[in-house]
Amino acid sequence: MSNCEWALALHGGAGILKKDMFSQREISDYEKVLTLALEEGKSILESGLSAVEAVSSAIKILEDSPLFNAGRGSVIGNTGIIEMDASIMDGQTTQVGGVSCVKRVQNPILLAREVMENCPHSLLVGDGAEYFAQKRGIKLKPKEYFYTEKRWEQLQNARDKKQLVLDHEGQTQTVGAVAMDINGNLAAATSTGGLTNKAYGRASDTSIIGAGNFAHNDSCAISGTGTGDQFIRNVTCYDFFALTLYQGKSLKDAGEIILDKLKRVGGYGGFVAIDKKGNIEINFNSGGMFRGQVSSAEKISVGVF
Amino acid sequence: MSNCEWALALHGGAGILKKDMFSQREISDYEKVLTLALEEGKSILESGLSAVEAVSSAIKILEDSPLFNAGRGSVIGNTGIIEMDASIMDGQTTQVGGVSCVKRVQNPILLAREVMENCPHSLLVGDGAEYFAQKRGIKLKPKEYFYTEKRWEQLQNARDKKQLVLDHEGQTQTVGAVAMDINGNLAAATSTGGLTNKAYGRASDTSIIGAGNFAHNDSCAISGTGTGDQFIRNVTCYDFFALTLYQGKSLKDAGEIILDKLKRVGGYGGFVAIDKKGNIEINFNSGGMFRGQVSSAEKISVGVF
Repeated sequence: MSNCEWALALHGGAGILKKDMFSQREISDYEKVLTLALEEGKSILESGLSAVEAVSSAIKILEDSPLFNAGRGSVIGNTGIIEMDASIMDGQTTQVGGVSCVKRVQNPILLAREVMENCPHSLLVGDGAEYFAQKRGIKLKPKEYFYTEKRWEQLQNARDKKQLVLDHEGQTQTVGAVAMDINGNLAAATSTGGLTNKAYGRASDTSIIGAGNFAHNDSCAISGTGTGDQFIRNVTCYDFFALTLYQGKSLKDAGEIILDKLKRVGGYGGFVAIDKKGNIEINFNSGGMFRGQVSSAEKISVGVF
Repeated sequence: MSNCEWALALHGGAGILKKDMFSQREISDYEKVLTLALEEGKSILESGLSAVEAVSSAIKILEDSPLFNAGRGSVIGNTGIIEMDASIMDGQTTQVGGVSCVKRVQNPILLAREVMENCPHSLLVGDGAEYFAQKRGIKLKPKEYFYTEKRWEQLQNARDKKQLVLDHEGQTQTVGAVAMDINGNLAAATSTGGLTNKAYGRASDTSIIGAGNFAHNDSCAISGTGTGDQFIRNVTCYDFFALTLYQGKSLKDAGEIILDKLKRVGGYGGFVAIDKKGNIEINFNSGGMFRGQVSSAEKISVGVF
């Protein structure tokens, strides 16, 4: 059992990652940004601020980096448009906020948090979400801000192969975070650009509480990444929570069960999870997952394969 | 224990319904449409067709009636726009389809089914969902088709009182159905116009698998109605399923637990559920719920309070 005062874990997407897909330089760039996000979360949690503050601030850093598939650097859909999703859940209050298919919001995770804290609803989509963003003073960017050459090339490759890239190349790089703060409160946050070559208007598991994200002080917080449509039909993140709460499964056992269930419906992925004692569980059934963790008892560590 | 070959249950929305809110004539009009939908489902199930066919055809009839808050007759949001949500799940294949914030689709439930059967994704929202509808030949209607004078008056009342009408007047009339067919397969389908005076772009629990809808042959199918934002944070319909599957709760006990959990976060509502033996459970913690049921062993019955 962990004996820490606070803890934080991040993922930067699970996929069929192979070492020859990245140069050493690229890997080290990814690890650098993951480390920056962990340092930010660490400093927040050390100073006694909330798990919600830690996960949203860490995710903001990953969204602002063009390396990850969230915010700037998001993948491009089949109409050539970038649409981004995010959600957040406060395990103490069980309040939630989600946004789906936003095109100009610099930090979808901050808009999701604004929905959680200042909107009577739980999930806003499309133009309506941006309308709310403007009313609440959330920062918008021109669409060009989100665009990267790398994602454009990935779209062309996917079009050539007539495929949703995720299933084959697995460069998902969805980002997620879970944390426990010094008051023992949990939170989870997740953000993504979705799938390369996805349909216009496709909402992902990342925007859906229970599918790609869940947090509840009664047991644990979890953020998922992978083939999102299978996370949606399996209600994967709530299932993880239910297995721990209703069957007393450990984080490890619950994690193996949900990954196995994903596989049975043709999906794969990974997750980061944390319980109310600050124990962290990270697992994936794909070739790799960008990830990192830190706690009051453990130094920052990051990994990919 | 039920001993039937097939069974079907419908709801037409839970709310703080009081007898003096409706004339006897209005109540009888609602009951007539519920009966029509049950007759349609009965004829489908008797002829050996699937639970998916039964729930989608029954919901289509409720959507086409201007009385219910789904399809024609949907409530109006705070920008004066009607946005509709629906989802469907096949308990045999565990495939799902959902749509959110569509404005011109005559039958959102049929579009949700089209997503389930002919789209690699699980949930499409807004313009993207209508773009997919057009490509697949799903029937669109001009926006005026959905408009009713009654809903416009409800919006004016809500604006005067600066409230989301649901919480106080409870005329929700979201529609939902669950069925077991002669092969023992389960399905659930739900459709809604959401809340009077809701924010532009608000996606409801009705479009979200696990929140307002769930079906799995391993245990049961359920369709919910009520204060949807609480259904989303509680992942209410998957929670119901998890309680039956992981804790062996009866439909009745699982129902009481989820209704109690809703109440604890300030919500209320109701549901129709069915298990793999065709047992039907209907419950609500509001003043009333439009509902009806029929099976191979039972004649059609409908009720409101």
